[in-house]
Amino acid sequence: MPNKTMPRVLIVGAGFGGLQAARRLARYPVRITVVDQRNYHTFQPLLYQVATAGISPGEIAAPVRQILRSQDNIEVLLGEVLGFDLENRVAKLAELEIAYDYLIVAAGASHAYFGHDEWEPMAPGLKTIEDALEIRRRVLLAFELAERHAASGEGQIQLDFVVVGGGPTGVELAGTLAEISRHALAHEFRSIDPRHSRIVLLEGGPRVLPGYAEDLSRSAERQLQRLGVEVRTSTMVTGVEPAAVLVGNTRLPAAVVLWAAGVAASRLGKSLGVPLDRAGRVLVNPDLSIPGHREVFVVGDLAALQDRNGKLLPGVAPVALQEGAATARNIGREVQGKAREDFHYLDKGSLATIGRAAAVAQMGKIHISGFVAWLSWLFVHIFFLIGFRNRLLVMIQWAWSYITYERGARLITGDQTLPSWERLRAPKEPARESAAQPMATPDSISR
Amino acid sequence: MPNKTMPRVLIVGAGFGGLQAARRLARYPVRITVVDQRNYHTFQPLLYQVATAGISPGEIAAPVRQILRSQDNIEVLLGEVLGFDLENRVAKLAELEIAYDYLIVAAGASHAYFGHDEWEPMAPGLKTIEDALEIRRRVLLAFELAERHAASGEGQIQLDFVVVGGGPTGVELAGTLAEISRHALAHEFRSIDPRHSRIVLLEGGPRVLPGYAEDLSRSAERQLQRLGVEVRTSTMVTGVEPAAVLVGNTRLPAAVVLWAAGVAASRLGKSLGVPLDRAGRVLVNPDLSIPGHREVFVVGDLAALQDRNGKLLPGVAPVALQEGAATARNIGREVQGKAREDFHYLDKGSLATIGRAAAVAQMGKIHISGFVAWLSWLFVHIFFLIGFRNRLLVMIQWAWSYITYERGARLITGDQTLPSWERLRAPKEPARESAAQPMATPDSISR
Repeated sequence: MPNKTMPRVLIVGAGFGGLQAARRLARYPVRITVVDQRNYHTFQPLLYQVATAGISPGEIAAPVRQILRSQDNIEVLLGEVLGFDLENRVAKLAELEIAYDYLIVAAGASHAYFGHDEWEPMAPGLKTIEDALEIRRRVLLAFELAERHAASGEGQIQLDFVVVGGGPTGVELAGTLAEISRHALAHEFRSIDPRHSRIVLLEGGPRVLPGYAEDLSRSAERQLQRLGVEVRTSTMVTGVEPAAVLVGNTRLPAAVVLWAAGVAASRLGKSLGVPLDRAGRVLVNPDLSIPGHREVFVVGDLAALQDRNGKLLPGVAPVALQEGAATARNIGREVQGKAREDFHYLDKGSLATIGRAAAVAQMGKIHISGFVAWLSWLFVHIFFLIGFRNRLLVMIQWAWSYITYERGARLITGDQTLPSWERLRAPKEPARESAAQPMATPDSISR
Repeated sequence: MPNKTMPRVLIVGAGFGGLQAARRLARYPVRITVVDQRNYHTFQPLLYQVATAGISPGEIAAPVRQILRSQDNIEVLLGEVLGFDLENRVAKLAELEIAYDYLIVAAGASHAYFGHDEWEPMAPGLKTIEDALEIRRRVLLAFELAERHAASGEGQIQLDFVVVGGGPTGVELAGTLAEISRHALAHEFRSIDPRHSRIVLLEGGPRVLPGYAEDLSRSAERQLQRLGVEVRTSTMVTGVEPAAVLVGNTRLPAAVVLWAAGVAASRLGKSLGVPLDRAGRVLVNPDLSIPGHREVFVVGDLAALQDRNGKLLPGVAPVALQEGAATARNIGREVQGKAREDFHYLDKGSLATIGRAAAVAQMGKIHISGFVAWLSWLFVHIFFLIGFRNRLLVMIQWAWSYITYERGARLITGDQTLPSWERLRAPKEPARESAAQPMATPDSISR
């Protein structure tokens, strides 16, 4: 049982980094408080499955206090941290202040629009359960509205889905959307054919999955094309408007636009008053503490740290987990009178899923693509759902979906309108498309 | 395959009645259009499990077009029917008009506040998935806010949950809330003890489950009390305000109020221009058609029909299913040149669940209570989930919950505030409680 003389560790954020720190700290003589804006931990690697109606939110989200309930020295509070008083070692929430001896800031990141926040209503990103439900709503609703439009004799509406950003999230979303439109929904409509919808993936750089080796990027692109995705690399988005994405002078029609292009660190990084990188990440010391405050640590997507080769550690779950564990160990060592150790990331490899039986895996010099990579991805992710009682359920659901091509959670909840819809239904505007675009032929963009 | 010369049957509403009618009609030479405001059918008998975080929405909701996809002569449209032009046989939606030869109105019912719609924001009812998520949000959030309040040293807040209405829904909600607070949540908080929360069930009539035999009502009341519910019968609610329910001059404090007291038929009943009963139900002919329009039928909760004993058929799934099937048969007979038949309800018995291993069952003269009734309830309801691919998943989840007392879907989504909260946190007001109330002693209501 905790007592009041033990040092108090405050952990802000119950993502992979914060939760791992809490679990590992529980064995030391400290009192731990975990604060999060949500009452649940989200298993982010499967968020795209919620967004594409494969599984329900409850299956990839578990209440933080349930996960941590067996640890007597951990207290969980629902609340939003607004800022810190680092001198007096106090975190400020709207309703209360929490004093700490050690602070671990694991507030993560959210999507960013390169300074164009006005694009967000037209192009939602995918970082939270709410985001996933909004994407699910828009995708399913687009098909429903097109069916109703066609059934009323007003003609066909071309359903184009544009995914902006060719990183892991964009690739997952585009691949799964293609799968849905070609399989799960293919035979359920009477007036439209979902297989005629177009899935376009736009990537600003020269290749998709830029964090992976070049051969895997090429393989991912081929796998995407095989699933039915139109991949356009070296294509910078210059604007988003209802029913369209602008690429230079070209206007790509879009029933639904999804945003997977930019990441911005939590604004809590700024409130620490220490140097940040351009994405708002905190430039941490080698032990993950911040300059000038040895008792304050930053872990996960909010931390900017280079590996031994000078490369910035990516914002992925394994990095956050290892950083959380390392910070717990350092605090534990310190309260036991031992010295801290610097953090070093152990890269066990990277996996990115693309769609049905499609994925890439990179473990050092071993590069795998296709079904074997996809199976690896599946097993690793179900393995890491440990701690979630839903692992069995998710496995059954997955196996079922794989065999039948069905999607289990196709609910449209909330608003029954789409921001793009009025424009899609309107008589076609005179094309503002230019033939001079190097990255898109007029053929591929005309309807 | 359907052809244009076949009679067109329009079904409004994809609940039990509408869906059953569509399935049974599919075998006849007719073209069928099913219109619903939602893209999914809701298995309403398990809604209370979503409201109490036991299962996810996706597990009791299936897309209408997925359920009906194998029937070529059925078209499914998402849309809200606003009214009818009965003379010209046209249904009016916002976006289109649908002509019909036969019309089946199966638009169901919603909760009613006895003319006090202003109570709704303080006391949500339970008819839709959205309702269930709102109740879940409020219940879980109440515990979270109380924990945060206590953790900040501002003292304990008494968490009272008041359920208004002692019919099947109120009984389920109260029983399950008691179970959650005494088991699932009992050991997860550090500053509050969820077992100290109070669950109060208010019923205006002299007994709970008034649709059942008296001995079963008494049994249900005992079972509720054993689960930890405070049952108050003959207690009319005279007002609802933030953080309180008014019963005469007595003010019952309430962190969360749930409404399970009144039912009002869909406003589409009124638009048919035929006589309604006091709850807005359509007084149908013995073949479920409406006076003056043989081609228009009303089935399910929107229809008012008496059984052979002159008793109004209750608004439950078996009635809606049988009415939907009977209407399909009558339309089928008519298009084949045969005469219609009057509808007669075959009562196979009633089951009401109360909570963990607690239920009542009434099959003619056979009355069962407790564990056996609960098992019957479980098997009947899982059996009727047929058509839902999630039956296996729901069973596993249920078995797991039963063994571990865990709740699988404890997500707080949406707004992070409670309408009652400011009042609960505020310094206690001088009591406006009267000692002269016959149905509540001052002891039982004072905090």
